[in-house]
Amino acid sequence: SSLLNMEVTRLLHITLLITLLLYFCQAYNYETYFYKQKVDHFSFADPDTFNLRYLINDDFWDGNGGPIFFYAGNEGDITLFADNTGFMWDIAPEFNALVIFAEHRYYGVSLPYGNDSFTKLKYTGYLTSEQALADYVELITYLKSAIDGAKNSTVVAFGGSYGGMLAAWFRMKYPHVVQGAIASSAPILQFTDITPCEDFGKLVTADFSKESPECANVIRNSWAAIDSVTRNEAGLAWLTQAWSLCKPLKTPQDITSLKNYLVNVWTNLAMVDYPYPANFLAPLPAYPIKVVCSHLTEANNDPKPLLEEVFQGLTVYFNYTGDSKCLDINQQADSRLDDYGWDFQACTEMVMPFCYNGVEDFFEPAPWDFKSFAQTCYQTWGVYPRPFMAVHMYGGKDISAASNIVFTNGLLDPWSTGGVLWNVSETVVSLIIPEGAHHLDLRGSNPDDPPSVIQARMIEKTHIQNWIDEYSARYDE
Amino acid sequence: SSLLNMEVTRLLHITLLITLLLYFCQAYNYETYFYKQKVDHFSFADPDTFNLRYLINDDFWDGNGGPIFFYAGNEGDITLFADNTGFMWDIAPEFNALVIFAEHRYYGVSLPYGNDSFTKLKYTGYLTSEQALADYVELITYLKSAIDGAKNSTVVAFGGSYGGMLAAWFRMKYPHVVQGAIASSAPILQFTDITPCEDFGKLVTADFSKESPECANVIRNSWAAIDSVTRNEAGLAWLTQAWSLCKPLKTPQDITSLKNYLVNVWTNLAMVDYPYPANFLAPLPAYPIKVVCSHLTEANNDPKPLLEEVFQGLTVYFNYTGDSKCLDINQQADSRLDDYGWDFQACTEMVMPFCYNGVEDFFEPAPWDFKSFAQTCYQTWGVYPRPFMAVHMYGGKDISAASNIVFTNGLLDPWSTGGVLWNVSETVVSLIIPEGAHHLDLRGSNPDDPPSVIQARMIEKTHIQNWIDEYSARYDE
Repeated sequence: SSLLNMEVTRLLHITLLITLLLYFCQAYNYETYFYKQKVDHFSFADPDTFNLRYLINDDFWDGNGGPIFFYAGNEGDITLFADNTGFMWDIAPEFNALVIFAEHRYYGVSLPYGNDSFTKLKYTGYLTSEQALADYVELITYLKSAIDGAKNSTVVAFGGSYGGMLAAWFRMKYPHVVQGAIASSAPILQFTDITPCEDFGKLVTADFSKESPECANVIRNSWAAIDSVTRNEAGLAWLTQAWSLCKPLKTPQDITSLKNYLVNVWTNLAMVDYPYPANFLAPLPAYPIKVVCSHLTEANNDPKPLLEEVFQGLTVYFNYTGDSKCLDINQQADSRLDDYGWDFQACTEMVMPFCYNGVEDFFEPAPWDFKSFAQTCYQTWGVYPRPFMAVHMYGGKDISAASNIVFTNGLLDPWSTGGVLWNVSETVVSLIIPEGAHHLDLRGSNPDDPPSVIQARMIEKTHIQNWIDEYSARYDE
Repeated sequence: SSLLNMEVTRLLHITLLITLLLYFCQAYNYETYFYKQKVDHFSFADPDTFNLRYLINDDFWDGNGGPIFFYAGNEGDITLFADNTGFMWDIAPEFNALVIFAEHRYYGVSLPYGNDSFTKLKYTGYLTSEQALADYVELITYLKSAIDGAKNSTVVAFGGSYGGMLAAWFRMKYPHVVQGAIASSAPILQFTDITPCEDFGKLVTADFSKESPECANVIRNSWAAIDSVTRNEAGLAWLTQAWSLCKPLKTPQDITSLKNYLVNVWTNLAMVDYPYPANFLAPLPAYPIKVVCSHLTEANNDPKPLLEEVFQGLTVYFNYTGDSKCLDINQQADSRLDDYGWDFQACTEMVMPFCYNGVEDFFEPAPWDFKSFAQTCYQTWGVYPRPFMAVHMYGGKDISAASNIVFTNGLLDPWSTGGVLWNVSETVVSLIIPEGAHHLDLRGSNPDDPPSVIQARMIEKTHIQNWIDEYSARYDE
């Protein structure tokens, strides 16, 4: 019996190893190309052009009218999304699909003005979702004409998060280019006057308090504990050492940065609370919130022991691999997710109001202060936000005229609070994945997938097939 | 009996006088406002703003949720369209509608850079349909929030010609802003690789040869006659005098300009061959082609008598009022139609290929030569055309995902060759007006309207009512 136990333990270890190998080392196969794009698709005042990167795989494609699976790249290096969108790779063979991942302008290597792209507004100003979608229109139109056998191919857009927003909007704005869209965890309602700003933080908190109310309370109490400990030099030194910080804490600004880091860590954990080890924002174990919360057990501790608990939890996030020498609060997530570009987008078109009250959520209270937000944006980028731009452009909640979109939302995912959670029409549907985190359905299939995501993917495939059948029928006469 | 004849003649004269008064002097009543617009709605590189003019009439509006009838201004001073879109004014009372006419940027007084607007590409480059539609989005959104009782108003877009294209595209791109569109004589298919370039000229010709084949032949023979007569100084002087030209003919360039003028006159006559006197492009009698052709009867005449015939026909166009002292070949139509702006649009996004062969049409043979066209555009504006931009943006023939659009086309109108002449779906329909010229249905009702346009307007009203009912139902709970 103890031998059997050892065997089981060994087997479990081997299984874990294989799982890790599969999900950390999984590499999908694609070729890299560039397509020359206009910097401005909507006007003629600026004649500049640049090269947009895209990845392509035709291993599964039938070469004769088979569909094109098109990932609408979002805020990061496109290889990150190619590596984390296993669903497209999983189903490409059965659909005989051509797989394309297009990089979003101003991310990865698709920088319209190279290293100067973020140096002045004249260069940065063309970073908008409208321009990005127009890039995709031009790219797809070109590819359909340039690739033999692709002329009549159905195009299905895929995207997760902001990429899901793009996929949905792509179908809404350019239905002649994209015949249907899988919009996973796409918070198209996370805008001013649509979704209450406190909903997001409440859901992050719920993900932790569901593990244990104590866990959430540790985090809720941590803010005051940090303030109390870091009131003097000795405390700053203590926390630097206790949390293995790469850079010593010195100024009040450092404390603000530390807290911002924590806000992002707890939020990221809620986003990637996947049922198996994964490496999307960071390498993490299965159900990372459960693992984190296993360390956050005593909310009534004094500040120092409380912060020591918190550090045990943080370690799960920043050092699951054991390779991190220190905690770098400037490294919130995979470096392929480019915060610089997103900061500009959030400061211009993608103004998403968030607020916290510390009661219904475990964050430090922070109202949504648009005025000060706008000032910061102006100081940083020389531009004032247009908080209603996206709603005016894309319609906000009024998407009743759209067709052929599947919105999917995991209820663990805080972004689901800004998602479309109702069926809009027969062809614009919403799939709820109660056990799902951020775009779980777009990830590759996994033995530990909950039934709800397996079911969601089946329904997504049915819709995709319908779009293909509908579009192909045009050319079947 | 001769007394009775005199009476009838007097009565006819009085009727004519009243008709003229009604249709030349009709003035609709509106107030003029301006709304501050961003020069660039799609990017953040250019922070400039300008004032867009719009006209508004609330005489018929119920002030409480009644619909907004919104004219999507096209290439001209908006007052021209307000004065020539009687249909909106005619039906506003029964719908209790708020009537709005918005001026297209770069036309009328809505010049983003004032007198400099056409001086360099940096200023002119924002003259595109996409930017114009975004102006309308911002204007309507603002008005719905600013006007008490308009918050839940259904918005119906109206437009004729390029304005009709805008109305249709407005509904396609911004269905959350516009609940339906009346797109009259909207040649959304008049683009490269969609509609054969010769169709337009063939239909112009058919309008004349239907009156009499001889009439069309006079025009067909006029080009060679002009060449033959103007070979020497004496001939140039003769034609200058015979045609009462304001500026004497001197150079070959003058001959080219004269011929261009003629091409435009015959084309314009085909466009405005209305069944009653009207003043859209020029003051004209009822069925002006019939009147013109009554003078063009001898196609086999020698050059000079042939050109004298032609001049009799031209007189109908340029001097129906009898007020013109001379024929100004630089004044093709109502000066409120601004050719300068349209020339830029035609050179950039609205590239519409036309060609003539002189056999199936009565024009001088002229192939569609994109290369030379593009060169001319570059010389004039410093920009190369994007012939596929509009098709990529709006879908060309593939508008199957659209909803709530009524396309109307008169079969006398040469632009109908680039129009949508089939029912796309239950809610995207095409109405054919066999006796109709260019957007006849958008004109005010007239005792001489053919039954087909009366019928078309009734169907348009039914669709408008459906859109209102459908949208209002959202707020009826």
